[in-house]
Amino acid sequence: MVNLEQAIDDWSRVIGREAVIIEKEAIIAAQTATFATTQRVPVIVRPANRIQVQKILKIANRHRVPIYAVSKGKNWGLGSRVPVKDNCVLMALDRLNRIVEYDEKLAYITVEPGVTFRQAAEFLQAQESSLFLSVIGGHPDSSLIGNALERGDGIGPYGDRLAHSCSMEIVLPDGEVIHPGFGRYKASKVSKINRWGVGPHMDGLFSQSNLGIVTQMTFWLMARPKNFQSFLFTIRDLNHLQSALGTLRGLQAQGVIRGNSLAIWNVHKMVASERQFPWSLTCDTTPLPLDELKGLKSPWGKCEWIGVGALYSASPEHGRADRRIIRKSLRRHVERILFLDGRKVRLINSFERPLSWITGTNIGDVTRSLYSESVFLGFPTERSTRSTYWRKRSPIPENMNPDRDGCGVIWLCPILPFNSAHLTKAIGIVGEKAYGHGFEPQIAFICPSERAIYMFPSIVYDRMVPGEDERAMLCHDSMLQRMMEEGYFPYRLGIQSMASLPVGWDSHDKLVRRIKGLLDPHHILAPGRYAFGENAGVAREKALLKVVGRYEHPR
Amino acid sequence: MVNLEQAIDDWSRVIGREAVIIEKEAIIAAQTATFATTQRVPVIVRPANRIQVQKILKIANRHRVPIYAVSKGKNWGLGSRVPVKDNCVLMALDRLNRIVEYDEKLAYITVEPGVTFRQAAEFLQAQESSLFLSVIGGHPDSSLIGNALERGDGIGPYGDRLAHSCSMEIVLPDGEVIHPGFGRYKASKVSKINRWGVGPHMDGLFSQSNLGIVTQMTFWLMARPKNFQSFLFTIRDLNHLQSALGTLRGLQAQGVIRGNSLAIWNVHKMVASERQFPWSLTCDTTPLPLDELKGLKSPWGKCEWIGVGALYSASPEHGRADRRIIRKSLRRHVERILFLDGRKVRLINSFERPLSWITGTNIGDVTRSLYSESVFLGFPTERSTRSTYWRKRSPIPENMNPDRDGCGVIWLCPILPFNSAHLTKAIGIVGEKAYGHGFEPQIAFICPSERAIYMFPSIVYDRMVPGEDERAMLCHDSMLQRMMEEGYFPYRLGIQSMASLPVGWDSHDKLVRRIKGLLDPHHILAPGRYAFGENAGVAREKALLKVVGRYEHPR
Repeated sequence: MVNLEQAIDDWSRVIGREAVIIEKEAIIAAQTATFATTQRVPVIVRPANRIQVQKILKIANRHRVPIYAVSKGKNWGLGSRVPVKDNCVLMALDRLNRIVEYDEKLAYITVEPGVTFRQAAEFLQAQESSLFLSVIGGHPDSSLIGNALERGDGIGPYGDRLAHSCSMEIVLPDGEVIHPGFGRYKASKVSKINRWGVGPHMDGLFSQSNLGIVTQMTFWLMARPKNFQSFLFTIRDLNHLQSALGTLRGLQAQGVIRGNSLAIWNVHKMVASERQFPWSLTCDTTPLPLDELKGLKSPWGKCEWIGVGALYSASPEHGRADRRIIRKSLRRHVERILFLDGRKVRLINSFERPLSWITGTNIGDVTRSLYSESVFLGFPTERSTRSTYWRKRSPIPENMNPDRDGCGVIWLCPILPFNSAHLTKAIGIVGEKAYGHGFEPQIAFICPSERAIYMFPSIVYDRMVPGEDERAMLCHDSMLQRMMEEGYFPYRLGIQSMASLPVGWDSHDKLVRRIKGLLDPHHILAPGRYAFGENAGVAREKALLKVVGRYEHPR
Repeated sequence: MVNLEQAIDDWSRVIGREAVIIEKEAIIAAQTATFATTQRVPVIVRPANRIQVQKILKIANRHRVPIYAVSKGKNWGLGSRVPVKDNCVLMALDRLNRIVEYDEKLAYITVEPGVTFRQAAEFLQAQESSLFLSVIGGHPDSSLIGNALERGDGIGPYGDRLAHSCSMEIVLPDGEVIHPGFGRYKASKVSKINRWGVGPHMDGLFSQSNLGIVTQMTFWLMARPKNFQSFLFTIRDLNHLQSALGTLRGLQAQGVIRGNSLAIWNVHKMVASERQFPWSLTCDTTPLPLDELKGLKSPWGKCEWIGVGALYSASPEHGRADRRIIRKSLRRHVERILFLDGRKVRLINSFERPLSWITGTNIGDVTRSLYSESVFLGFPTERSTRSTYWRKRSPIPENMNPDRDGCGVIWLCPILPFNSAHLTKAIGIVGEKAYGHGFEPQIAFICPSERAIYMFPSIVYDRMVPGEDERAMLCHDSMLQRMMEEGYFPYRLGIQSMASLPVGWDSHDKLVRRIKGLLDPHHILAPGRYAFGENAGVAREKALLKVVGRYEHPR
């Protein structure tokens, strides 16, 4: 029934032969993630516009060929561009890269899936906009829409990206088009300023799902605050972090810290973003013990936790009030706290070289990413991508590409209640599982509200080292399992974890399957992706550890 | 095929005979809204719990009897308890009135559909909670869940209620149960602190829809601010309102005004909430001209627009900064601005009687509803329900019930871009259509963000007056039509407007119908409710104006 050859012919006719890619090098790259995978990609199709997306899907239906769509494919740690299931044709949406609309007064931007955070930021700068887009900690060349559809979190008050976006244009698996919200009415003047529209609201269905391909979406932009400050603080150890947590919750509840405007990293994570593994120090052994880590030259002193945050204030007076309340309430819990404003940054930068030398970190880089070109104000940075090279023995290349370079990265995304007992337990699980499998427990967390903590443990390794792929995946599986046993479910899955969730006790998963069956009777679109109860990818767990051997460098 | 008698027998067996109501008085009350309707309700069923809801639906499916569920049925102006279609059995969920869970630390409350704003507020007071629930301007005995599912707006920063809630328990039309979010996992500790869960997000589907009955839902509670102030201001006329709008948008964008923390009413709306129609002044004619209105004794001077807002500040220092920025930026646009804090309120209250006499308004009532028991801090009030009696010649009863008392009220809910040209145009439409049909243009609007304005024009009349029902509905229809022609689509419909939307240009409405067909093949649940393209209720427009004669007092 599946007729790939005929599909390739039909696609070539419709989108042009050069947009149907079968070259080995490209295919191998598309099959490569930051961890072991076995899925093969027979072809890559690169539509130029929404009409071509529709045609590709219609052809795929006719010939029963499954399609897996990615925007920019920078989903590192969660699968990159690799499909969940074997033998899916990859639809790369990078050519749909238009900024379709921009409204400075009503504060939104409408983009296609190929538009990146870098592109949007540069566009807004060129417009001399007074607005900014919430960016991610991830790579600047990631897709806005890709991130939003995965319900990835952004930085700053608009960090709940799906809650600050609207007006999707969606191609259904059968090629038809819908517009949740008011977009279905040509006369509407309110499609891009209102999330909900009128009637049953559908856009949630198309996030974290395999029910449609989003070809356009509107993101709300935030006004630059009249007064901006960022701050850094260090916390000595877990005890102090526990005691600080209630205070942080209070600051969040009172709106002093707004949305995702505060991130806390452990020193493992922080150091990995600043330098590579100190092989000489450990005589080539892994993992790096905490004591050795604390011995490294660093601006963090001997502290185990580092927080960075931002204050978006409506006036200098508000800014002073914000700073005072933060300083006063955190004082008891932190070792150091440093606020960055224009004056302070100029001062620090004038001592940049000696400070960098003393601290062992690039101070100019720090003040830039936190203040002058702050991630909190919509400037994306490559900083955290550097951490994917932590265990690599070769230096970090100018043009980073963790997939290509055999960087091992696996992410987990558990949610916890905003409570120090739960946080402590989750930190304990990460530590136990990471060290137990030979990795450092790299942890970051953010607090989207006074209720929840989103934690990001990452397992970072070198895929060149025999056995590490398998060990890292075992570590991931057992860490995820333990987290779920404690009730800390993941808010986002990677291709490695699509089949990890237990069976729910109600009819929810059945409803997802029924809707999938309705919209995509031939299961053409992204089979196995958030497809609960289909045992999607179950084969992975069994097959992977046997089949996949060493990482093979694709070039 | 439809077998109502058998269904009644089966229901009586399952939920008890006393919970299946066929008494004429109750039926007539259920058939009565605040405008003319022709729909008949054959029976009312009152389940006591979720299991009974499931059983009722299964029986309804078996006997093909359509069911229309309401929580408390206080959807005044949009249909009260009356089903969209004729001959639907009414399922009243008022017996499901448990507060199921409450967490002070994680700041949420889980309730059933019969729980009212009053009940929740009293519960929180009894707990001496430091949290509050965003309430509505509507009646305190309205249902939280009913309001949320209609995507009604609340007051204050948590005003976008659906965005500040989660963890629905939903009974599907076939009687099965689902839990969007993490509720399907019994081990989950994060179901009530996270909206999205993992995988396709479904809860939007069950708001403004006829796809399921929500039997439980969690609402997030906001922390009382460390410093609270409210403020009132008056704006002379439309010109000044236009000039103020940009400033208000800026205050919203900078986060000084947060979410739905500012409402602006025109003087027609304000006066109607304070007193009844001055029949003697107009020699019994309607509508009341603006000039006559301005001649009434009122605290608003000769101003045509009145704003009320709240400042949620993290400290007294923040409060001072907030007040200063509001005062400074609004000064040029407003006639008067008054801030209420503890000191000011004590001062005003000590002169309550003379002030009330001078201003012609109940000052104690005003300071209470804006400060000491402020609607901005979760105290619901009956104040605005009083305005439904505006045109009645009898005095406002202690126990208000606009349905019972023949109060005529029809609401519209258009959205506009946050822009003075659009606002001016919309105000013009309301004025033209209202006066043109013999009604005062009562207008309120709020600004949920710096992008959008939600406007609430209401048509208020006396159903006892022959011909008013018809005239009011004609006024509604033509006002809604004009709004949509200008692109100002409604974000919420009443039973009177379910069939008013045009046909969308994409496949959206078809998808809604396909999902409806999947979940409810026999069209048992709330036929015609947000059922786009089914021409739901089209018969109304034709039939209503002919069939319905005078309002008949139900008692």
